[in-house]
Amino acid sequence: MRVRNAMEILVEEALDNYWQQLELPCKCEICKTDVYAITLNTLPPRYVSNENGYAYVRAQNFNDQARLKMLDAIVKATGIVAVRPSHEITHPIDPSESNSKEV
Amino acid sequence: MRVRNAMEILVEEALDNYWQQLELPCKCEICKTDVYAITLNTLPPRYVSNENGYAYVRAQNFNDQARLKMLDAIVKATGIVAVRPSHEITHPIDPSESNSKEV
Repeated sequence: MRVRNAMEILVEEALDNYWQQLELPCKCEICKTDVYAITLNTLPPRYVSNENGYAYVRAQNFNDQARLKMLDAIVKATGIVAVRPSHEITHPIDPSESNSKEV
Repeated sequence: MRVRNAMEILVEEALDNYWQQLELPCKCEICKTDVYAITLNTLPPRYVSNENGYAYVRAQNFNDQARLKMLDAIVKATGIVAVRPSHEITHPIDPSESNSKEV
C-alpha cells in the first residue's frame, strides 16, 4: 500500500531552506536527520495516497500560520538536538568559524 | 535524509492481520490504502532515523494498550471509508458472498 506523509516533503524543503541559519554545535547529516525526525514527530501527520491528496496538503500548508508552525517545530527540534546530539561531538563548530563542515 | 515513521510498518502489519474481519462495501486496494492513510493520520507519528530507533518503537507498541489503540484507529478508519469510499462502488460486496474480490 503506497502512502506518504506529505509533511515529510514540506518539512524537508523548509529544513533545507533554513539549515544555514540554524545554530547547532554539529551540522552533520546525522544531526540534520535527527532534527528532521523530531520535527516530523511534533507535527500532525498528513498521509495521502495520491498526487491530488499531496497537492491539497501542500496548498493547505502554504499560508503563513502553517509555515510558522512548521518553522517553530524545526527550531524547537534544533534546540533539542543542539543540547543532546545523538552522537559524540569531537570538535563543535565555532559559530565564527566558516561553515565548511556543514552539509 | 532517511527517516521512517515506525507506525507505518506496525499499522501495515496490523491492517493485513485484521483485513479479513473488517466490514467494508468494497475491499479493493484503493479502499485498503485509504484505511491505511486515515489510520496513520490519527496515530501520533514515531519517526526514527535508524534500526535501533525502530526496534525501540516496536517494543513500545507491543503492549496491549498500544495494540488496542492501533486497532481502534484501524476500525474507525474502516468506518470512515465504508461510509465514504474515495471511488464509486459499482457492486458492493454482499457480506454473505465469498470474499473472492478481496485483496
